[in-house]
Amino acid sequence: MPEAERSRLHLNAFLMSTGHHEASWRLPESDPYASTDIEHYKNLARIAERGRLDSVFLADSPVLMGDPGRRPAGKLEPTVLLTALAGATRRIGLIATASSSYNEPYNLARRFASLDHVSGGRAGWNIVTTAGGDAARNFGLDDSPPHRERYERAADFVDVSKKLWDSWADDAIVADKERGVHADPARVRGVDHAGPYFRVEGALNVPRSPQGHPLLVQAGSSEDGRDFAARYAEAVFTAQQSLDEAIAFYQDVKRRALALGRDPQAVKILPGIVPVLGDTEAEALELDAELDRLIVPEYAKRQLARTLRLDPAALDLDGELPDGLPEEDEIEGAKSRYTLVVDLARRERLTVRQLIGRLGGGRGHRTFAGTPVQIADTIEDWFARGAADGFNVMPAVLPSGLEAFVDRVVPILQERGLFRTEYEGTTLRDHYGLARPADRF
Amino acid sequence: MPEAERSRLHLNAFLMSTGHHEASWRLPESDPYASTDIEHYKNLARIAERGRLDSVFLADSPVLMGDPGRRPAGKLEPTVLLTALAGATRRIGLIATASSSYNEPYNLARRFASLDHVSGGRAGWNIVTTAGGDAARNFGLDDSPPHRERYERAADFVDVSKKLWDSWADDAIVADKERGVHADPARVRGVDHAGPYFRVEGALNVPRSPQGHPLLVQAGSSEDGRDFAARYAEAVFTAQQSLDEAIAFYQDVKRRALALGRDPQAVKILPGIVPVLGDTEAEALELDAELDRLIVPEYAKRQLARTLRLDPAALDLDGELPDGLPEEDEIEGAKSRYTLVVDLARRERLTVRQLIGRLGGGRGHRTFAGTPVQIADTIEDWFARGAADGFNVMPAVLPSGLEAFVDRVVPILQERGLFRTEYEGTTLRDHYGLARPADRF
Repeated sequence: MPEAERSRLHLNAFLMSTGHHEASWRLPESDPYASTDIEHYKNLARIAERGRLDSVFLADSPVLMGDPGRRPAGKLEPTVLLTALAGATRRIGLIATASSSYNEPYNLARRFASLDHVSGGRAGWNIVTTAGGDAARNFGLDDSPPHRERYERAADFVDVSKKLWDSWADDAIVADKERGVHADPARVRGVDHAGPYFRVEGALNVPRSPQGHPLLVQAGSSEDGRDFAARYAEAVFTAQQSLDEAIAFYQDVKRRALALGRDPQAVKILPGIVPVLGDTEAEALELDAELDRLIVPEYAKRQLARTLRLDPAALDLDGELPDGLPEEDEIEGAKSRYTLVVDLARRERLTVRQLIGRLGGGRGHRTFAGTPVQIADTIEDWFARGAADGFNVMPAVLPSGLEAFVDRVVPILQERGLFRTEYEGTTLRDHYGLARPADRF
Repeated sequence: MPEAERSRLHLNAFLMSTGHHEASWRLPESDPYASTDIEHYKNLARIAERGRLDSVFLADSPVLMGDPGRRPAGKLEPTVLLTALAGATRRIGLIATASSSYNEPYNLARRFASLDHVSGGRAGWNIVTTAGGDAARNFGLDDSPPHRERYERAADFVDVSKKLWDSWADDAIVADKERGVHADPARVRGVDHAGPYFRVEGALNVPRSPQGHPLLVQAGSSEDGRDFAARYAEAVFTAQQSLDEAIAFYQDVKRRALALGRDPQAVKILPGIVPVLGDTEAEALELDAELDRLIVPEYAKRQLARTLRLDPAALDLDGELPDGLPEEDEIEGAKSRYTLVVDLARRERLTVRQLIGRLGGGRGHRTFAGTPVQIADTIEDWFARGAADGFNVMPAVLPSGLEAFVDRVVPILQERGLFRTEYEGTTLRDHYGLARPADRF
């Protein structure tokens, strides 16, 4: 890849309640009601925008995730929350996760097109297929559809969504008051989509939006997930625990995209990173350890047992993982996360208690505890070695961890010429350096 | 009904692009791109709030309605648009229409609960069942489900939504940092709903919202629609062309609510009114006539033919409606609107051209052209005679018609003691004088 075209990295702020560490809400500084407080999120988005970050990002699943005793489990729906944040910010991108398994394309395509209009072209959609029977049981199913089927549905969902976003030409509205013609009927057309999962007549009832299509993001790392990313994604969020694995993943996805005739540069690879910052490394490690001490082990053990499809009684806090765990192939859903957790535990011979500590910070994403310079060095290293086009920044504690990153790490990256000092465009596609799709008319 | 308890009326601003008159966009003052311009809508919402109106209201159908040549047909999805307006206003209620036929309860209940949190308790849901095969064909169906079936699904939809909104106790979040317990698991519970249309395990992933439930609004006036309103609605939007019909409708819905054991006062009846204001009556009538002249008859004839299920060729602009039109019983969807149009034409012996003019202003809602005092008199008259608990105000031209109503009609109603001069509470339920539902824990 030519050096000039990837001289700048991309940074998103992955927002989550009081922070990505599951015990963050227990810190004296944390507001335990933050997850439904729009002012908390407006503050976070403004901090991220002050740092000129590419976007704020929200995860989602249409289910109450985990034990509500353990951490803030209730939250605001992402398309609603990001729409509210659009009004509190001017330039930063807004990426919402939404499920292709439990939505209808006409409804979701409308909402993203509307968010793109309302925000002046800052919408992104993180496409997830939603693993797990508990989500399925909120939608009349007994269990989740199989992994492969969910990805096929996702492909059909995105295909029809693109047609819907293109169902109005960019110049469809002629606004001829004299003749009494508002839009040229020849420049608005039905989509007449008949795919394996969806039949949609169209047209969309939203004129084409500033970005044409919202930015398409994807976060699955299984085989099906990588194929889907190579075909559709413009940004890929991924959990990578080591530099070597990250480089291998990066090269694999870019290669798959190239094989499909896409420009590999048009697929940005963005691993998650959980920065835990201190003035000294010792201070950072102490904050990290303090957070881990606040984890309630019984809750965390239940959650880990769930990820591993085990009875919690099978896990001994001071022992390693039991033998005889299933292979990834036997797992339906969140396949790559399952493998990451098992591999991490095996590779480093962690006890269950240690594993819980490692996962408590970033749920599989890599935690870096250190000084601002150390974090900037790591970011630069991963970027320079071709492990990442940027990062999805997941502060362990919010807002303090985001403030520390923006005020202390970003300036170092800017000084090194690795990150923008001002937004150069107005849309999320501008920030990522990605083209606006043509309207096919 | 005791006089004291209905001494004040309720007023909503029904927002629609450049106005409710289909030719409003052709006026020199109108911005033909207003329907996707968030600044246009923020301005409208602030005007309505300046007038201390109860709410802003948005209609919706998940389909491109009508001919995009004829009037602004593309628009923003209402839950997105109202969320954006929440940030631009402080007190006014926010009522979004959403279809119970083409959504899933878990998704929609989340969005309304989220909007209620983001707005500090100002969300309302206008429940519609969505008539018409064109909408159905955006969701994989060949035609709309039958009228009765759509209403049965709507009932099941609302039943499960209420359970979801009540799945967190108001005091579920205990935020005990010391013990490490965020929410009391005994105060968050699954809904385990198994109805005729929906199976939902729950719980919702949104803590209980400021209003408990969003305000429930309904706008169907058929037999099924009235039964549904009597059972579920807290406010009913309705199209009424004459005082006598309005009184009959008002009494009928209140009687049905009473028969179901509800307090009739807890069901507010709000007819639509299209005010066309002038300094003199002649000036108002001239504006009304100017708008009617701007209607393109060929477009409007096609739309009327569609409402009447006729070939456009069967309509003669200068003749009356043809004989042999079907009875309401034979119509699937938008039943009451069909009957209203046919009755209006027959009763006043209107030509097709005249009928188009009458419908062009308010699509079946009554247009009042007159001076501010005349409009205030009419509002007072309908209110005093028990034809309405208030009105859904549908300005023919926006923003000018809303500004005129707020600045010239509202002060008269305030002087007469019929309308609030300041908001007394903070939520939409407060504005309507409706109780917050208890949480059933």
